[in-house]
Parts: sequence; structure tokens; C-alpha cells
Amino acid sequence: MRILVANVNTTQSMTDSIAAQAAAAAAPGTEIVGLTPRFGADSCEGNFESYLAAIAVMDKVLSYPEPYDAVVQAGYGEHGREGLQELLDVPVVDITEAAASTAMFLGHKYSVVTTLDRAVPLIEDRLKLAGLDARCASVRASGMAVLELEEHPDRAVEAIVEQAERAVRDDKAEVIVLGCGGMAGLDEQIRRRCGVPVVDGVAAAVTIAESLVRLGLSTSKVRTYAAPRPKTVVGWPLLAEATAAR
Amino acid sequence: MRILVANVNTTQSMTDSIAAQAAAAAAPGTEIVGLTPRFGADSCEGNFESYLAAIAVMDKVLSYPEPYDAVVQAGYGEHGREGLQELLDVPVVDITEAAASTAMFLGHKYSVVTTLDRAVPLIEDRLKLAGLDARCASVRASGMAVLELEEHPDRAVEAIVEQAERAVRDDKAEVIVLGCGGMAGLDEQIRRRCGVPVVDGVAAAVTIAESLVRLGLSTSKVRTYAAPRPKTVVGWPLLAEATAAR
Amino acid sequence: MRILVANVNTTQSMTDSIAAQAAAAAAPGTEIVGLTPRFGADSCEGNFESYLAAIAVMDKVLSYPEPYDAVVQAGYGEHGREGLQELLDVPVVDITEAAASTAMFLGHKYSVVTTLDRAVPLIEDRLKLAGLDARCASVRASGMAVLELEEHPDRAVEAIVEQAERAVRDDKAEVIVLGCGGMAGLDEQIRRRCGVPVVDGVAAAVTIAESLVRLGLSTSKVRTYAAPRPKTVVGWPLLAEATAAR
Amino acid sequence: MRILVANVNTTQSMTDSIAAQAAAAAAPGTEIVGLTPRFGADSCEGNFESYLAAIAVMDKVLSYPEPYDAVVQAGYGEHGREGLQELLDVPVVDITEAAASTAMFLGHKYSVVTTLDRAVPLIEDRLKLAGLDARCASVRASGMAVLELEEHPDRAVEAIVEQAERAVRDDKAEVIVLGCGGMAGLDEQIRRRCGVPVVDGVAAAVTIAESLVRLGLSTSKVRTYAAPRPKTVVGWPLLAEATAAR
Amino acid sequence: MRILVANVNTTQSMTDSIAAQAAAAAAPGTEIVGLTPRFGADSCEGNFESYLAAIAVMDKVLSYPEPYDAVVQAGYGEHGREGLQELLDVPVVDITEAAASTAMFLGHKYSVVTTLDRAVPLIEDRLKLAGLDARCASVRASGMAVLELEEHPDRAVEAIVEQAERAVRDDKAEVIVLGCGGMAGLDEQIRRRCGVPVVDGVAAAVTIAESLVRLGLSTSKVRTYAAPRPKTVVGWPLLAEATAAR
Amino acid sequence: MRILVANVNTTQSMTDSIAAQAAAAAAPGTEIVGLTPRFGADSCEGNFESYLAAIAVMDKVLSYPEPYDAVVQAGYGEHGREGLQELLDVPVVDITEAAASTAMFLGHKYSVVTTLDRAVPLIEDRLKLAGLDARCASVRASGMAVLELEEHPDRAVEAIVEQAERAVRDDKAEVIVLGCGGMAGLDEQIRRRCGVPVVDGVAAAVTIAESLVRLGLSTSKVRTYAAPRPKTVVGWPLLAEATAAR
Repeated sequence: MRILVANVNTTQSMTDSIAAQAAAAAAPGTEIVGLTPRFGADSCEGNFESYLAAIAVMDKVLSYPEPYDAVVQAGYGEHGREGLQELLDVPVVDITEAAASTAMFLGHKYSVVTTLDRAVPLIEDRLKLAGLDARCASVRASGMAVLELEEHPDRAVEAIVEQAERAVRDDKAEVIVLGCGGMAGLDEQIRRRCGVPVVDGVAAAVTIAESLVRLGLSTSKVRTYAAPRPKTVVGWPLLAEATAAR
Repeated sequence: MRILVANVNTTQSMTDSIAAQAAAAAAPGTEIVGLTPRFGADSCEGNFESYLAAIAVMDKVLSYPEPYDAVVQAGYGEHGREGLQELLDVPVVDITEAAASTAMFLGHKYSVVTTLDRAVPLIEDRLKLAGLDARCASVRASGMAVLELEEHPDRAVEAIVEQAERAVRDDKAEVIVLGCGGMAGLDEQIRRRCGVPVVDGVAAAVTIAESLVRLGLSTSKVRTYAAPRPKTVVGWPLLAEATAAR
Repeated sequence: MRILVANVNTTQSMTDSIAAQAAAAAAPGTEIVGLTPRFGADSCEGNFESYLAAIAVMDKVLSYPEPYDAVVQAGYGEHGREGLQELLDVPVVDITEAAASTAMFLGHKYSVVTTLDRAVPLIEDRLKLAGLDARCASVRASGMAVLELEEHPDRAVEAIVEQAERAVRDDKAEVIVLGCGGMAGLDEQIRRRCGVPVVDGVAAAVTIAESLVRLGLSTSKVRTYAAPRPKTVVGWPLLAEATAAR
Repeated sequence: MRILVANVNTTQSMTDSIAAQAAAAAAPGTEIVGLTPRFGADSCEGNFESYLAAIAVMDKVLSYPEPYDAVVQAGYGEHGREGLQELLDVPVVDITEAAASTAMFLGHKYSVVTTLDRAVPLIEDRLKLAGLDARCASVRASGMAVLELEEHPDRAVEAIVEQAERAVRDDKAEVIVLGCGGMAGLDEQIRRRCGVPVVDGVAAAVTIAESLVRLGLSTSKVRTYAAPRPKTVVGWPLLAEATAAR
Repeated sequence: MRILVANVNTTQSMTDSIAAQAAAAAAPGTEIVGLTPRFGADSCEGNFESYLAAIAVMDKVLSYPEPYDAVVQAGYGEHGREGLQELLDVPVVDITEAAASTAMFLGHKYSVVTTLDRAVPLIEDRLKLAGLDARCASVRASGMAVLELEEHPDRAVEAIVEQAERAVRDDKAEVIVLGCGGMAGLDEQIRRRCGVPVVDGVAAAVTIAESLVRLGLSTSKVRTYAAPRPKTVVGWPLLAEATAAR
Repeated sequence: MRILVANVNTTQSMTDSIAAQAAAAAAPGTEIVGLTPRFGADSCEGNFESYLAAIAVMDKVLSYPEPYDAVVQAGYGEHGREGLQELLDVPVVDITEAAASTAMFLGHKYSVVTTLDRAVPLIEDRLKLAGLDARCASVRASGMAVLELEEHPDRAVEAIVEQAERAVRDDKAEVIVLGCGGMAGLDEQIRRRCGVPVVDGVAAAVTIAESLVRLGLSTSKVRTYAAPRPKTVVGWPLLAEATAAR
């Protein structure tokens, strides 16, 4: 089984770390392929960057030349999953939803700890649309920007632990969700520090994608995620000319 | 006052009709500028096309060379408004929200009549995120594709009236919202046929944009819609090279 | 175009200030007529007073002898808008709803800052019924009684700013709504102090009323707001005899 | 124990029938006093009439010269209960809420069958504000106007039974609430016909009022329902002069 | 009228105190019978114990040899009420719901003060299912275990008062509900200390049960609470052999 | 890895079929152990039976003598999962929640098709508590009793297909969930007939349990699902004496 794990930003080292986290979670026999978009921001921390990432991920996945069994979109709180579902016949799993869905099997309420405060409303909106917000105690910002997570892993752990502890104590969370693809790999440390289960979205998404494939389940095509109707689409794929030259 | 009214698809005739509807609703002294995206689908009827439109509208608005006072995004149920709000300092008004917000001043419940069934969940999701769904009695599909509205205006009116009447009778709607930018101009006929107020999103959005400008109000920049943080964005604007040659 | 702006209490100076705020927001050519009820409390700060105001506003508007195009009910969180909508054919805009609806175009969440703590549940209830509460971060009381706003404008600004700042910091509001007709005119100062858009309900309501008139839209009469059925109403208008003698 | 049961309209025969229903439900030793407002509509079937009734009931109750232990407001879906709660120290029970609250002890979902279609949104709004709507399967209109219930009791039963049966079959109601004070006395017939418990709001409200009195419980005065602040109220009581002469 | 009041745990002294509280609230002529389950925990403070109590209460009530008119299940936030409703034809009233329902007649919002923190989610879940959570300001834990309430009544009052005061001040509760059957009898003290109405679930449930009986109302049998279908049930009643030997 | 799959009723053939379905979904190396409760109903179709099953499943799982890695509770819409989570340290997955959670990755809305109408409210309540109801389009009854599913598999398929088709057409479901452990094995046929993904809860639960184990995740023990406090529990395990003799 081959699963494409699409980073939402253009930072290759983050793709590598996400892919490594995915591979660690995958079953034997699952091949993980990390994808980096051909365009977009080096980190996604807002709506413009997220919308651009949505298209960039679709562009990248569509241009992947080999067969694959499922796609994981590895951006926490990002746009675009619905578009991928329309374009593909294989299952598409977003890490925001995968993590929330997994956390709900582990405790009465969960909290998300993410990067910057400005990302909080995006995540809240994604969870609301996904119908996975009823048991979300809070979405909290650690104050660490996406790229700082890589640069300062120790500070990141401290900042995330602090918010996780508040979530458990004040918001009554019983499970912590790591709200950024770039936090992949920190779960074990934070779990030890906080004493509650910690869910990493990439790992959760990979196992869900594997399960869907194994059960022979994929996106329903009867309505919302039916393939796009045949029509004229100007300038798509977007960077055809530009990328041809690279 | 100059208001940019951005069509979400690449069909120029639809831009023209939307701009005309906008101009008819505008106050004396308001200049309406219709914009057609440089790339994307000739009609938006799903998530992929909608996400592409989100970026295409941002691309087009950002490349507009003159000053302006507000932007109306004229796609019903489409993505992207939040991105524009980050990128711009002037007010951004989405017709989905403008129409719903206006309808709520006119009756206890409103229904949206849109194009194809597959657009219904997108619209429902937009209204839910906007927090404007509590008094939405239903979102109903007329079965007319976006481009058919222009080609067969008579059939369009019939199909919309049929759903509007059901919405009033069965769903207890007291106001009808036209759920497609391409329905601009049909409101008067449908109002006569159905006996309830009919809200066109483009007209509603223009008056709201005008009001915000007049009241000196624009998007809050303290959190969700703060300007994007400075960072490396590869390949943006998207079609720079390609469009340079066109 | 003539818009009646009905104060909900019997304090003429408050009517004057509300009318001035309305006039400042109105388009050229719009005539604003401030109305003071013939009976009721000199300030509305609770349910009894609000219910009395509901009837007093209907009484006053119905006795207005000239034609008019729309009515603004200028009490924040007060009862009665639905009754006016039944009795009139022109649009009726409540400032509670106008301000909330406007605020939602400006930020992800808004908070209301009102007068006394006891008014908070009334406002929350009005927003819930209006279906405009989903993006309301909080309703906060400044502790200033309605009539103190006029007497102590400086203390009022301080008290409102304090709550507005807490709303932005703690409740994650991105927009502040002034939750009292008597706060008309304070918006600009508070905006400067808080750094977020500040919406005054009277100004918002006037522009919405103007827009509805210009778009030819008015209250739907098919169900909830149909004209009252013909029947015997004892003692209405209420103060006919009493007021005849005044 | 003396309980005032306030009719919301000015039809004395309806007051009599409501008081009789209340007396039949009351415990031995409870005295029921029916009150008819001094002004207002002969039947309440909309917002204007309901708001007028709100004030008329407060006016009437306040002018009641003897001591009493509780007040039942006997209008289904009407305004005003909150005002009475402010003005009085004894418990105030609204029949809309009493019936819903009682029905919820009897089945998983309940439906309300009321008079005219235009009353449905008022009732829905009252239940929503009361927080008693989550298990309301539907509010259905029988099409019988309030005064027709008295004139044509047989037709009323048929019309109510028809809607009650639909509520049970289609909406999955397990309990029927009679949604009009004027339906007092029909519960037994409808119960026999429909095979589900039928709750009459007047009877339910009387037993709840009795229980509150017996338990020594009354309205909390710490916030929402604190007594009105001392202030100038012009023209209250409303019909002092007029009624003095009657 | 005879009402069975079923304790959910096996501590006889608690049954006695609950029965005494019930008797104090009952009308003259109502006989209260306290029941102690034949098996289960000596106090219920979690899901396992609560599920066991659910079955133990059904077991005990079914084995009660005399006729009775209603059953009160006297465990706050416990499971099982729905099962009793299926098995019995008389009304079944759970104290969690009785207290919430009663509190809602007394103030705009209520809070529950219960025993241990771990009981909070159970109570929240019960209120959500009952559709009685919309006006619940908070469920707060006093930190007192169930059996400590009896042992240390003074400390219990202090701990409950502390949380009640926070609920009123911080959560804007206007009524306090005592969230444990073992708090029966503390209401008067806490009311004096907190200045808001305090509702004891046992007392509330008894008066509701009496009212239902007097009104001739009982559980609807058309769907959710229809009697169990005839089928083979192994090992029921559960302790037949064991208890035969006692 | 060993997963206990606990049937909720005492029908051994149903345990066998559930275990077979579980085994078919399990990864290589996962051992499935089917458990049949020692007491309870031969089929669960209501609250009494479900509560009894809750305890019977806990009793059975606790008496399982070998080590295991996770437990699947294989009753759709049944009580008890929370109790197991308290008693065990390994993950517990309920098929109601597993199926809903899985369906939400496959389409915008899902519907459940279950057995008898009386089971519908139980399932709706379970989904509401689980916070997985927001995207549930409907819960529909096929009219087939649990044991009829085995006896008349052909009729079962027809009855389920009919409701599934209605769910897709009328309720806009895009995915069907089989709402009974006894439907295990029918998914493929129904999928072929209905053209939408069909989720079997047992299969879904097994893959989720496997994933949790593989990710090293289990129930949070900090609050709701902490182990029961040490206390006296009379008569537990319930059938000790009785079963000793069997």
C-alpha cells in the first residue's frame, strides 16, 4: 500500500519530518511518500497561505506519476481536503480531522495545542465544519511559529507542555492533540510530561488511511465529492509553463 | 467610491451581468468594477473549482492597479473570502453572507435556491461557518447548472420558482435568497411569482460594502485577518510568467 | 427617504443624540426623524421596562402622521421589533441585530459591551433569537447605567474601553459592538483606544434600513409578520384618552 | 394557597375555562383566581397582540388587591413572563414552559399542536429561549383560530387530533402538548384518540406553581429578574385614567 | 399516593436521609418508600458504579411487592432512568432532570454543584441528553466524595457554598442545584449563605412525580419507552439465587 | 495483538458472526476473541436490555482470563462503553462511534440504518453524547428485529437497502452505516445495491482498535475514565454463585 503524505508548505525539511512520523506509524508493507508543493508559503499560518496550499497540494498530488492508495493532507487546520476528495478516487484523510477523531476514542474532551494565536480560528472552523468540535475543550496557541518548531524543539516542547497543562487543568481536556504537522515527533515527550494521551495528526491519519484502504472504503461520489463536471478550466495545472523550466 | 466586484469564474459575460446588477444596486457616485479571474473554471460548481477560484480572485484583486474602497466576492457558497480579508485593508463582502444577513431582516426564516444539488453542502457549510445558518430553513437546488442560467433564463426562472414555492410552503421560508451570482437580475420576476421578498446577493453585498465604507469600518486586523506574516512564498503571483505572455 | 428612529425610552435628550448619530450615518437625502415614546421608563434596563417600551414604540410609530420609508428601533437588546414588523409594511431594523450583523462582516468574533450586568441576558436572548449569536464572543457589562452614559461620558468611555479590551484579549473578540443606544457617538473614541473596529448599532441600522429601501425589500408578510388579523382590541391605542388631555 | 391564573386576552369566557381547568388540576386547598386583562386583543395570535398582552397581564396582576402565592401566565407562546418575574416576588410560571417541561418527563420527544400557522414561530422562539426545544419534535398548527376553539369544540378536536397523529407518526413525537390556553379541557379526548400522553399547559403550570410554593422556591433576584431599578416611568399604570372611568 | 424513592447506592443511611427529604417535600397523603438496591457500590461516583446502579435500581423496584404510583430515581447524574420507564407503567422521575427542570423556572441560568470532579462529565452528559443543558451555566465539583457528605456535613456546606458562590459570580448562575442525592437537606443552609434559590433534586422530583400522578400522566409507550419485547433474558432477575439464600 | 470483541447479547451465533466479521477486517497477526455475555437478553432492542448488556459485557470482559490489547463493544447504540473505559487500561472502541467516525471520512453526511424503530432514539442519543451527530443525516429503522437479521438475511438486505436508498435520496446521506452488530457481513451487498460506501461498525472498530494499540494510545485516566475509587461493591461480580454452578 502506498500513501502520499502531502505537506502543505514548501519547506522540504518539514516534509521529511512529516514523512518520517508517518512511516513510524505505518504498518509493515505501507510505503509512505512525502510530497512538497511546487508553490506556496514556506509555512502556513493564515488563510491566504492556507488557500494557496489547498491548490498547491491538489496540484502536487495530481502530478504524482505513480499509483497510490490514499492521500494524507498533513496541514493542521488547512483548507483543501474537499477539493482533493473530488479529484481523487482514493481516500483522503486530513490530519486535523484524523487527530480529533482519534482523540475522541481516548477521553471525554480533547484540546488542540497549535502554533500561533491566529491559527486558532482556522482550526476551530475546520473542526466545526467537520462536526468534530462538540467534544473539543479548547484550541490553544503555544505562540511558536511553524518554522520555530524545527529551530527550537526544546522551547517548542516547553511552550506546548504549558498550554497542554492548562488545557487539562482549566479546560478539562483529557487528551491533547498536536495542532501542527510540524509537531510530528513531539508527542512522546509531551505525553510523558502531561500524563494524558497525546495524538499526533500525521500518525493518526496514516492509520486511518490504511484502515480505509484495507476495508475497501473510499470517498462517496454521489454528491458533495463527485468528480468535477467537465468544463473549461483556464490555466490549470497552474504552474505548467513556469515549472516546465525549473 | 469604487467597489471591485469579483466574479469567481472565468466567464466574462457573467462578470458583465454581475457588474450590471451591482451597478443597479449601487448608490449614485459608486463606481462598480467587475473583475474576471485570470484562471480557473468557466463556472464554479464544486470544491476544486471553488478553491481554485479563491486563489484566482485573490490573484486578480491584488493585481488591480487602481485604488478601491471595498471588494465584493460574487460567488455564492465559494471559498476564499477570509484570504482576501487578510490581504486587504478595505472591507470584503461575500455575497453568500450578504444575502443571508439581509434576508434575516425580512422574515423569520429564509431559504436559498441555488443551482446544482452538489452545491448545496458547500453553501450550507459557508452559512454554518459564517454563523448565519440558524434561521436558514433550507438550501434547495434548482437543478440548473451555472451556465444554463444564462442560456435558458426562462427555464431558470421556472426551476427557481418551483423550489422557492416549496421552500415557502414546506420549509416555512419567508424570504428567498438567490444562491448563485449568475442569478443576478432574476430577483424581480421571482418575487412577483412567489409573493415573498427575494434577495440577490450581489445587490445586497454592494449596499453592505457601501455602508461599511461610509461608516469608516473595515476588517479587524488583530487576529484572524491580520496581514500575512512576512515569509517566502514560492510562485506567487501564480501566473506571472504565463500571463505576462498573454 | 425618511427613516423613523425610535428611542425606546422617554428621555428626549437621548432621542436627540440617537437621531444625531443616525443623521451622521445617513446618506445624503435621507431624513432622520427621532421619536420619543409617549410613555414608559426614562431608561430601559430590564424586562418590564423593555416590554413597556415595545408597546410604547409601536404606539408612537403608529401615531406618526407623515409617510416614512423605514423604522429603526434604537434600543439595544429590547423587545418589540417583531410587533412593529407585523404592524408596518416598511422595513423595521433593530439596532441589536444591525450591529451584530455588521460586526460579522468585520471579524471572526465580536463582543458586545453594554450598560448594566442585568441587561446582559436580555441581549444574549435577543441575539440567540435573531440567530446572530454563533460568532458572539461575549456580552460584557460596563457597569454604567443608561443615564450615566450621558452624565459621565468620560467615565463611560473608560468603563467601555476596559471591557472592550478584556473582550479582545480574553474572549478573542475582533470587533466591539456598543450595546446601548445611549452610546451613540462614543464609537470613534473607543475604536482609537482599542484598535479594533467599533460598531454603533444606530449607525449600522440606518445604513441597513436605507439599503433595504433602495433595494425595494421589506418585511415578508406570508407568515410570522403578516398583519394582525382583524379583531377587537380593547384600549388601543393605549393612552388615547390620557394623551388627548396632555 | 392562592394562584392567579392570568389569561392573556380579553375574552372573559376563555378566562373562565382556563380557570376551571386550573382548578381541576389544583390540589385541595389551592384557590385559583382567573384574571382577564383590562386591555388588549380578544385573542392573541401574533406578536403585536402578544406584546400588548405582556403589558396587560403585568398591569392586571399588579392591580390585583389581595395577597397571592404564585402567578400562572396562561398564554401559549406569549411574551411577558420575564417582566412579571421582575415585578413580583412570588413564582411565575408560563404555560408554554410548564407544558414542555412536563412533557419531557413523559417521552423522548414531544410536539406542540397549536392554533394558527402564524403562531408557530412565536412558540418555537419561546421554547428556544427557554432552552426547552432540544426535545421538541415539531410545533404544528391545527388551523383553528383561538376563538374558534370555543365555538367549534368538535372541529377543534378533529383538527388537533389530525396534527397530533402526524406528529406521532411523522415527527416521532411521543407526547402531545396542547399549544393554546384555549384548548384547556380538550386533553382527555385527544389522549384517548391519539394513544399518547397529552399535556395541557394550564394544568401543568398550576401543579408546578404549587410545587414551587410548597418547596419555598421563588424567582432568583440576583440578576436577570431583579426588581426594576427605581426610575421615572411615564404613564404607568397604563390605563389609570381611562379605566377609572369604566 | 405511594412513591418509591430509589437510592442508587447500597448505603442504607443515605436511603434514609433521601427518604426523609422526600417525605418533607411530599404533599399530605403521599407515602414515601425508600429503596436500597440489593447490590452495587456503597456510593456511585463513576460510570461503572452508575451502570451497576442502573440495573440494581431496576432489580429493586421490580421486586417491590406492593402497588405504587410513581418512582423517583434518586441518584444525581446516574444512568438507568430510561430502563425503568420501559419496565414500568407509572411515571419515573430522575432527580437530575427534576432539579434542572425546576431550576429553570427560577432564574435565567442555573449551576449544579456536585461531589467529585469525575462526576461532572456524567452530569453534563445526562443534562445534554435530557435537553436541559441550554441554560446550565456550569457543573462544579465541591471535591467532597459522596460518603464524606454524611460524615462531614459542615465541611460539605462550606465546600458547596464556595462553588455556589463562584457559580453565581463567575458563571452567572442565578439558581444552584445540589448535584447529589446525598446533599438532601443541605439546601436551606446553602440558600441562606448564597442568596439564590437552591434546588434539591429529591424534593423537586417528588413534587413532579405527585403532579404527574394527579394529572393522570405517565410515560408514553409508543416508541422509546415501550415495554421490552418478549424475549429470552438469561439470569434475570440477577441475584435470584444469591438473594434467595440471604 | 489480541482484541476482545464483545457481543452485547447472549446469542452465540451472533457472537460468531461478529467475530468472523472482525477477523476479516483485522490485520494479519491480530487475534480476534468473540465474547458472549453470561447473562442478558438474546437480543438488545431497548433500554432495559441495553443497560443489562452494559453490565453483562463488563462482567464478561473482566472475567476473561488471558491478556488482551483492546476491547470492541459490538452493540450498536448500546450503553456501557464508559464503564469499560474506567475498568480497563486498554483501548475500548464502541462500534456505534467507530462506524460514525469512519463514515465521516467518506462523505459529507451519513445515515444509520438500524433494526426496529424503537432503537432509533437510543442510537441518536449515543451519537449525540459522542459528539458525532452533526453530520448524521438520519437514523432509519428497517423494521427488522435483531434476530430476524440472521433468520431472513434476504429480507434483511431488502429492508436495509430500501431505507438506505431513502437516506441517500431524501436525507442526502452520502454514506450508509449499518446500525446493528447483527448486520455484520451485509455491507458488501448493500454497497453494491446503493452505490455509496457502507460502513460496518465491527470492521471499523477493529481497525481503530488496532491503530490505537499500534500508536501506543489508550484511554485517558485523568478524569472521566479514571479507575473506580476503592469502595465496597456488594454482589459483584454479579453472577458469581449462579455461574459457578453452570
